[in-house]
Amino acid sequence: MKKERQATQVKQLHAIPVQGMPEVNPGDSLAEIILAALRGNEMQFSGGDILVVKHKIVAKAEGRILPLAGVRPSRRALATARRNKTDARAIELALREAKRVLRDKHVLITETQHGFVCANSGVDVSNVDGGESAVLLPLDPDASATKIHRKLKKLTGLHIPVIVSDSFGRAWRQGLCDVAIGVAGMRALRDYRGRSDDYGYTLRATEQAVADELAAVAGLISGKDARVPACIIRGYAYLRGRGSARQLVRPADQDLFR
Amino acid sequence: MKKERQATQVKQLHAIPVQGMPEVNPGDSLAEIILAALRGNEMQFSGGDILVVKHKIVAKAEGRILPLAGVRPSRRALATARRNKTDARAIELALREAKRVLRDKHVLITETQHGFVCANSGVDVSNVDGGESAVLLPLDPDASATKIHRKLKKLTGLHIPVIVSDSFGRAWRQGLCDVAIGVAGMRALRDYRGRSDDYGYTLRATEQAVADELAAVAGLISGKDARVPACIIRGYAYLRGRGSARQLVRPADQDLFR
Repeated sequence: MKKERQATQVKQLHAIPVQGMPEVNPGDSLAEIILAALRGNEMQFSGGDILVVKHKIVAKAEGRILPLAGVRPSRRALATARRNKTDARAIELALREAKRVLRDKHVLITETQHGFVCANSGVDVSNVDGGESAVLLPLDPDASATKIHRKLKKLTGLHIPVIVSDSFGRAWRQGLCDVAIGVAGMRALRDYRGRSDDYGYTLRATEQAVADELAAVAGLISGKDARVPACIIRGYAYLRGRGSARQLVRPADQDLFR
Repeated sequence: MKKERQATQVKQLHAIPVQGMPEVNPGDSLAEIILAALRGNEMQFSGGDILVVKHKIVAKAEGRILPLAGVRPSRRALATARRNKTDARAIELALREAKRVLRDKHVLITETQHGFVCANSGVDVSNVDGGESAVLLPLDPDASATKIHRKLKKLTGLHIPVIVSDSFGRAWRQGLCDVAIGVAGMRALRDYRGRSDDYGYTLRATEQAVADELAAVAGLISGKDARVPACIIRGYAYLRGRGSARQLVRPADQDLFR
């Protein structure tokens, strides 16, 4: 029987850039830096807020940045770099960070130690601190998110879920999208299995990657050049609970495209 | 040389659900229905707004809904449905909608006529109108978006980009994300190639799939059961110009994972 359409009140969602963040240095507390930036903008966290942080400042705070000058590429890295027209030293680091190489044609696609599938093991090259440096993914981005989440709790008394994001390419589709590589304080997936849809039909196999969608919101806010490495999302009714970006990784044996 | 960090003013982004939408019927004008719903909420479009519409109501307005009762599954559909524990009639439609079957193990992954890679050619089963029906993807979702976009222009005088969205699964990652399957009135991709990053390093090969990220925002707003099939995104500085969801489709010969 068709159900009556209920007047579900869905809230507006707001994505608020954290403006005026200073340079981040190894050992810095991102929670403290972000709170200071908010104070500088006469803003503060509210209950229900979610914080999305670009992995780059996490990597910087955790010292996961290497000067390229000191990297000696292997023969394999040299060959791949020549083929893909890119920097052999960055490819060397990408190979070291990789658990497995999936494709090596035009672009190096690897599975990282965390299980993420992405280009060049997520290694970015940047002109950090005056010289060419490689920014590596955090060793354990869920732990990075948890650390910021706990510190925010300590400093504000609020439960603020934290997502660490990076821009990844996708199979089949053009363009990068920001996705969650670290999650703390909320469920990364929302399970709609067993729920009814608008018309009483039971939904099957429907899990929504909400942490990735939240990362995408932050991607729109910060862009590639907007210099806004942190963003607050307000108004999203997240599900509290243990969540991690590892839950967003499809196990290799269930993946039809690896 | 390291550039001075500029005080880039990045705007907040708001995602506003269009509440109180009525049932959509074949032949309905979605632009008119959405404008009426907004009036009912004492709201209106502003310049700079983007409209995201779930493909399901587009399919309904365009009559892309078939009662499953009239579908006779082929032997292939019966075999696939048995293997994947799903409805053979829906699989039959999925096979008819497919240009190519990519995987047929656990779940049927196809390339649709539009070039999208997704489960079951995007065919959804729903209890529409009292019986089990299949909702098919619009024949030309870019044209569907353009139609709504033009009608909104006519009725409001405003240039409102329109995105038609659907929830797709991804390779390598768990959970569905909403993506753009139709785009009108804005660029679907944002090209950062040749721009400098925060530290003066020239970005390489960086195109952002902004239309997909905008669809993801709407995915958070509407969820699977929130009954909000349309959403306004306010505050995103989109690039005007000819855009289409076809630009988001990676050509098969450039795709390393097909």
